[in-house]
Amino acid sequence: MKVDLNSDLGEGFGAYVITDDAALLDIVSSANLACGLHAGDPEIMARVFALAQEKGVSIGAHPGFPDLWGFGRRRIPFSAGEIERLIAYQVGAAQGMAAYAGHRVAYVKVHGALGNMAEEMPEIAEAVARAVKAVDASLPILAGPLGAQAAATRAAELAPVAEIFADRAYTEEGLLVPRGQPGAMIADANEAAARVAAMVKAGAILTRSGRLLPTEIGSICVHGDSAHAVETARRVRRRLEDEGITIAPFA
Amino acid sequence: MKVDLNSDLGEGFGAYVITDDAALLDIVSSANLACGLHAGDPEIMARVFALAQEKGVSIGAHPGFPDLWGFGRRRIPFSAGEIERLIAYQVGAAQGMAAYAGHRVAYVKVHGALGNMAEEMPEIAEAVARAVKAVDASLPILAGPLGAQAAATRAAELAPVAEIFADRAYTEEGLLVPRGQPGAMIADANEAAARVAAMVKAGAILTRSGRLLPTEIGSICVHGDSAHAVETARRVRRRLEDEGITIAPFA
Amino acid sequence: MKVDLNSDLGEGFGAYVITDDAALLDIVSSANLACGLHAGDPEIMARVFALAQEKGVSIGAHPGFPDLWGFGRRRIPFSAGEIERLIAYQVGAAQGMAAYAGHRVAYVKVHGALGNMAEEMPEIAEAVARAVKAVDASLPILAGPLGAQAAATRAAELAPVAEIFADRAYTEEGLLVPRGQPGAMIADANEAAARVAAMVKAGAILTRSGRLLPTEIGSICVHGDSAHAVETARRVRRRLEDEGITIAPFA
Amino acid sequence: MKVDLNSDLGEGFGAYVITDDAALLDIVSSANLACGLHAGDPEIMARVFALAQEKGVSIGAHPGFPDLWGFGRRRIPFSAGEIERLIAYQVGAAQGMAAYAGHRVAYVKVHGALGNMAEEMPEIAEAVARAVKAVDASLPILAGPLGAQAAATRAAELAPVAEIFADRAYTEEGLLVPRGQPGAMIADANEAAARVAAMVKAGAILTRSGRLLPTEIGSICVHGDSAHAVETARRVRRRLEDEGITIAPFA
Repeated sequence: MKVDLNSDLGEGFGAYVITDDAALLDIVSSANLACGLHAGDPEIMARVFALAQEKGVSIGAHPGFPDLWGFGRRRIPFSAGEIERLIAYQVGAAQGMAAYAGHRVAYVKVHGALGNMAEEMPEIAEAVARAVKAVDASLPILAGPLGAQAAATRAAELAPVAEIFADRAYTEEGLLVPRGQPGAMIADANEAAARVAAMVKAGAILTRSGRLLPTEIGSICVHGDSAHAVETARRVRRRLEDEGITIAPFA
Repeated sequence: MKVDLNSDLGEGFGAYVITDDAALLDIVSSANLACGLHAGDPEIMARVFALAQEKGVSIGAHPGFPDLWGFGRRRIPFSAGEIERLIAYQVGAAQGMAAYAGHRVAYVKVHGALGNMAEEMPEIAEAVARAVKAVDASLPILAGPLGAQAAATRAAELAPVAEIFADRAYTEEGLLVPRGQPGAMIADANEAAARVAAMVKAGAILTRSGRLLPTEIGSICVHGDSAHAVETARRVRRRLEDEGITIAPFA
Repeated sequence: MKVDLNSDLGEGFGAYVITDDAALLDIVSSANLACGLHAGDPEIMARVFALAQEKGVSIGAHPGFPDLWGFGRRRIPFSAGEIERLIAYQVGAAQGMAAYAGHRVAYVKVHGALGNMAEEMPEIAEAVARAVKAVDASLPILAGPLGAQAAATRAAELAPVAEIFADRAYTEEGLLVPRGQPGAMIADANEAAARVAAMVKAGAILTRSGRLLPTEIGSICVHGDSAHAVETARRVRRRLEDEGITIAPFA
Repeated sequence: MKVDLNSDLGEGFGAYVITDDAALLDIVSSANLACGLHAGDPEIMARVFALAQEKGVSIGAHPGFPDLWGFGRRRIPFSAGEIERLIAYQVGAAQGMAAYAGHRVAYVKVHGALGNMAEEMPEIAEAVARAVKAVDASLPILAGPLGAQAAATRAAELAPVAEIFADRAYTEEGLLVPRGQPGAMIADANEAAARVAAMVKAGAILTRSGRLLPTEIGSICVHGDSAHAVETARRVRRRLEDEGITIAPFA
């Protein structure tokens, strides 16, 4: 039994640091790398690609809105066509940096507000899929198993990879319980680890009421944007390994 | 007899326009496309790649300093290593946009202050060559026949392509007469066209004193950043064609 | 009989130019000056303040969203509080540049998407008014006579100044006919000039059906972002003067 | 006996944080606030002004190069005139935010590479002084007692305020021992605190060889860009207070 563990990283900019990239690259098997528009810069990208290559970690391009100030968390009213081109630009830039550092881009995962829009809105999900297909049709798209992206990815004949979140509760429909609702976040690292191990073993999403919704689970998303988050990620990994599950890149 | 005609274009940003891209793509056989850091954005890049593909014009990545305000014309004190990564990022982004638009990046020409530094300083020229080699070793580098870039390109076992400027005078050493010196600029379009035709036919650079310095001439650079410049470019092309020289991409 | 004529200017950035600032400063009596976030930079601001001072033209701060790529025309989801602070920052920066150049900021007019939002949404209009009041309560706010800004300006005990557009048709309610509807734009310069002269003389807005809605008219907005627009502005001014109306700053 | 204690703060940008502003505002009596070009944004500026006002801390505008990526630490080749306008813009923006938050800008201290250039080059120091004088001639300029800025400030008939660094050694000429030279940095917090207390009491700079160079000391600069730095700042403050020296703003 095998699963991938992914996290966002490389989210600094110049002197600014958000993620502890070196620590995370010892924990995850796949890392979603910011591409320079909502965070990240060529220095950070080169360092992360080189270190990931050394440690055997897969890198996914992690494109977002061109909004450093908002860290890609604001919904900027770009058209679907403009979003296609934003994605193409960033995936290309990531491929350039990967080649430079002797590694490769193995998949795409969309960041922040743009990622949320792509999960909710078919026309944005299709824009993402068209961009990825045009730039490199071999790249899988990492997204929720039941959102608009998975559907658009399949429709575009690209490979969807299903991810679940270690620290989030799920509705009866298998969607994320919105932040702000009671019980939306799983704050306790041990509980998060146990839940995730159970889901991977069951091949199913565990809903709030305790039902299991069968789904492929290609990757588990853990967060890395605080010291606390890094510790949670570490515990999730250990628990999965303790349960006999191998952590390995899907790509 | 055949030569390439190149010009910078795609140098706008959002609502800002500098070059008349559509007009230039009817004149030149190769276009140096800004990559989003000193000018250009994904919308402009996609449009230029698509139009160039339609018109049979080659596109070169035209990376510069990340300095939109300074239009890439200020020498920003980046290290050689940082410059390598700036180039890799931009060439990758251009390749992503090319793939998106169904065209390709055919060569690299460095922009503005970064280009001048690469012509003068071997360590910067070598950084450029290392970046291009790492990202795509098949890409030629377009630069002066006698500057640091041509040497570094050859040393890196990449292909240099020699360019001469239609509107600039040359010293007895075959270098550009620095702007500001008397006679540095050839303002008259007919004179510029005649000079260039003579140099291409002679396979030599014509110096101020009238000497001919034999050199390969792969491409002629014309400017396109004003209505007047577009008209000059058009005359240079016509004159070359009138003299029986075919204008065609080198790449 | 007297009226102000205003136009946006200083909308370049570095090497980029949009408005012919020198030409416009010979036509208008008030100029809305971009403050560096959606357009403009300290070089342009200093030049415009100095030239305006020389020519006796009033300058208003013209703050917009921090979105150079979108030229301030995209509605970025900032909160009302964030918008307050965006306005305060830009008005302050404009005052700094005004003091530097020996002129002063005489009023505030909000730009583009942020201006449209402030016209439509009372909470945004109130945020603008709070910011202006906090930074300099002596500054009038230039906006439509019947929009949310005029109301919020009065409620904040600041001075509203009513503007009408030379090139736009008005509904029976005295609002702008939305772009895209037939007849929304008055393309003909002579017609625009005649309409505006009639409105100023009548002290009323002329609606599509020919009704006159009495309102104060403090300023007439003309556009300056093309050669054609500059010519229209010039004709509007001449026509007003021919009708015996003096063009003079309101502030 | 009284001295001011200053530190840079507000050096984040959006989601990025560098300085622990709340902690520092409990330690220092003056805070140098980034103005949005090398770091800082209107949200951070408003928060810092409001908190400083509450705690009785003076705020100085801390302008730098427009280089967020380089955090203002790169020497960008702006002309002296351009630097004047960069300073005027930022001081104005800071004044706008101060008025918004109910506080005021009490002085100017130039940041990073621009600050170093102003200390070394009279023409840059004069540009800074001209800008400050034009925007608000009542603002003192905080800088080294023996650098070009102190001289230019006096020549412009502005008020210089002399600062010394808690964590740096001084040459026999009273200049900073360049970083990188042995003994340039005083790493030990207790040693730094003791040295500074001795200098304030002596009214003199203590050189490497132990000589005392008499000078006014208006302020002591401590750093706040790490948890360790905050702890050092706290110890310097305690030591000064233990020696009977009152910490209070100079402005």
